Amino acid sequence: MAKVPELAERAGLDPGPALVVTDEHVADLHLGELMEAFGARSWKPRPLVVAPGEASKSMDTYSLVMDWALGVGITRQTPVFALGGGVVGDLAGFAAATLLRGLPLVQIPTTVVAQVDSALGGKTGINHGVGKNLIGAFYPPRLVVSDWGLLRTLFRSEVRAGCAEIIKHGLVADRPLATRLQRDLGSLMGLRDPIAPELLRDAAAVKATIVSGDEREAGRRALLNFGHTFGHAIEKVAGYGRILHGEAVALGMRAALHLSASLKAGSPLAPEADLPAPFAEADALVRDLRIRTTLDGLETPELMVAMQSDKKRAAAGLRFIVLDDIGAGRVADGVPVEMVEAAWAYARRVGAGG
Amino acid sequence: MAKVPELAERAGLDPGPALVVTDEHVADLHLGELMEAFGARSWKPRPLVVAPGEASKSMDTYSLVMDWALGVGITRQTPVFALGGGVVGDLAGFAAATLLRGLPLVQIPTTVVAQVDSALGGKTGINHGVGKNLIGAFYPPRLVVSDWGLLRTLFRSEVRAGCAEIIKHGLVADRPLATRLQRDLGSLMGLRDPIAPELLRDAAAVKATIVSGDEREAGRRALLNFGHTFGHAIEKVAGYGRILHGEAVALGMRAALHLSASLKAGSPLAPEADLPAPFAEADALVRDLRIRTTLDGLETPELMVAMQSDKKRAAAGLRFIVLDDIGAGRVADGVPVEMVEAAWAYARRVGAGG
Ligand SMILES: NC(=O)c1ccc[n+]([C@@H]2O[C@H](COP(=O)([O-])OP(=O)(O)OC[C@H]3O[C@@H](n4cnc5c(N)ncnc54)[C@H](O)[C@@H]3O)[C@@H](O)[C@H]2O)c1
Ligand SMILES: NC(=O)c1ccc[n+]([C@@H]2O[C@H](COP(=O)([O-])OP(=O)(O)OC[C@H]3O[C@@H](n4cnc5c(N)ncnc54)[C@H](O)[C@@H]3O)[C@@H](O)[C@H]2O)c1
Ligand SMILES: [Zn+2]
Ligand SMILES: [Zn+2]
Repeated sequence: MAKVPELAERAGLDPGPALVVTDEHVADLHLGELMEAFGARSWKPRPLVVAPGEASKSMDTYSLVMDWALGVGITRQTPVFALGGGVVGDLAGFAAATLLRGLPLVQIPTTVVAQVDSALGGKTGINHGVGKNLIGAFYPPRLVVSDWGLLRTLFRSEVRAGCAEIIKHGLVADRPLATRLQRDLGSLMGLRDPIAPELLRDAAAVKATIVSGDEREAGRRALLNFGHTFGHAIEKVAGYGRILHGEAVALGMRAALHLSASLKAGSPLAPEADLPAPFAEADALVRDLRIRTTLDGLETPELMVAMQSDKKRAAAGLRFIVLDDIGAGRVADGVPVEMVEAAWAYARRVGAGG
Repeated sequence: MAKVPELAERAGLDPGPALVVTDEHVADLHLGELMEAFGARSWKPRPLVVAPGEASKSMDTYSLVMDWALGVGITRQTPVFALGGGVVGDLAGFAAATLLRGLPLVQIPTTVVAQVDSALGGKTGINHGVGKNLIGAFYPPRLVVSDWGLLRTLFRSEVRAGCAEIIKHGLVADRPLATRLQRDLGSLMGLRDPIAPELLRDAAAVKATIVSGDEREAGRRALLNFGHTFGHAIEKVAGYGRILHGEAVALGMRAALHLSASLKAGSPLAPEADLPAPFAEADALVRDLRIRTTLDGLETPELMVAMQSDKKRAAAGLRFIVLDDIGAGRVADGVPVEMVEAAWAYARRVGAGG
């Protein structure tokens, strides 16, 4: 992180006033180091510390950030540094997108999710009472500085949940990455050098490649929703914040793998049976995350309804991301309801695997 | 306006649910016609009527529009129709830009300002206590439907103020337009067919040409601020809402023409003298708007301070848009303070001209 100011300058930003948005947890752990680095190169950073957690992705906090930024005094050249996880990145990114119709944005992601997913691809935004991420903008950062050392202070559960997204990247688009994860998931979850930073970097590259040329989410970008239609339904029915997003996605991926197998077979697989190759292998990788989330207490009919209101779903019929093979995801439209129900039944039986 | 639904369909939008944002004045006069046109082609428009006036370009109204839109239920395909002047266009445009990270936007401008300026070029946004238009996004509309017949219900003062922007377009970038205005300004202000619609269309084309290739306001787009550095200062010191923006711009253009002449002469022109050619001709055109605004009650030192805090000004020195000739605007940096003061003195002597 000591290099942030220098990298920002190389990216064309002039040392001077800058806004830094972070949350309380990250401020306690890492803000001092960043401020020192700025001080050493004659930047004048002004930090704003918001409350940690999803609740800060709200219209109220957004409005507060705007008041603060405009009160401090900014020009179109004043950069916004987002130091934190996906919450800070999405919130500060949306603020940067809409202050004076766009200030330069620098993402400094501090969670696994942020480093391999949310800080990349230009989606910014906040939540609304009606649903998550309903207000926002596509606004690519000028620069992303990922320092994997920052992840050491994360709770293990946060690291694990982030690793679910890394597995997802491998499964939908990068077979070699998936293969390496089969061997090295333990080193990744333990944040061991040099394997962890390599895998993090390569997982980030998968996302970057997928979104480049698909900024507005028409085509391949949809692959990144693998496990998410199921996962979002789980989060919604469980009540947002009860389980980590990555935990819901892990369980959702197991359902999506069952669905992939059913689609390949042409009829719903029995939920009691083991998955056939290559889905069994992928399924084992997800299970190795040892996430303990289950569907206990969540009814299938409710999950089905929750799934239907997911904003990313096409108006007609059920649309899912499925695998043809490991590393080969695709969009499947008009999926039969019985296959979806069988997938839920499978996920109910096996849980996320922990 | 009867053609709006058909034009929207030709622009690739499917008949179906749609959001229509307008203000009370426009709703009373023109919303019925639009709703009828939609009804005739199986659209399902949902109108939201906001209070008329600049105060609706606020975080509160924005938040209200978002609540309403998300409450009504939208998908990424639901278009937003902005029926109104610049206030409605800027507000609804910003909402469209940020609902689900971007809904298709159709501008139906109903004021002169909106038809030749605000509905074109993709700037959307709202005001903040600290200043105007400080929050927003660059977000081009999918379609702009300009029906000059809608202007007939405007107050004459609003038409006149809008014509100030048309003159501006001619002066900075289109000598033939300026020449036609010298002859036909009366017909334009009287909204007489066929001269008025022709001039409106050509003035809109000037803006469209200038902004194409300069979406983010780096270069030529700055020309559109001719008269505006002075004008914004006038609006600010007078108190926003006391005079129409176009009225302030008219007076500001007279100051900017004096400044242009001083720069050409190389020293501050006496405020008592008439302007030399070609500036006198341009000045006469502005005067012919017969706008009665003056600087009475506004002190020059206050106007100077207000000008310095205009967000569009470069950090170092005074930057203005000036004319080299009619139809040939340019950016002038590092303008001597004495010339600016002389320009204010000239504007104080002559007023806008009415
Ligand atoms: N924009 C996108 O494309 C995209 C993609 C995926 C997810 N997201 C969003 O990201 C958010 C989730 O991101 P997240 O998982 O990073 O959540 P988060 O930002 O809430 O961070 C999780 C927790 O870890 C803490 N934390 C962050 N960095 C830390 C560190 N280095 N050490 C110790 N604690 C630290 C935070 O304070 C928080 O309590 C969601 O809002 C989701 O919608 C966005
Ligand atoms: N986005 C841009 O590029 C851009 C450019 C210039 C101005 N603007 C913004 O535009 C706004 C000014 O626009 P405006 O002058 O259109 O103001 P406006 O939208 O407030 O309209 C002026 C008045 O006319 C009424 N009105 C609108 N259409 C009418 C009609 N057909 N008949 C009768 N009354 C009608 C309105 O209700 C209002 O009372 C400002 O907020 C300014 O910042 C934006
Ligand atoms: Zn995710
Ligand atoms: Zn203007």
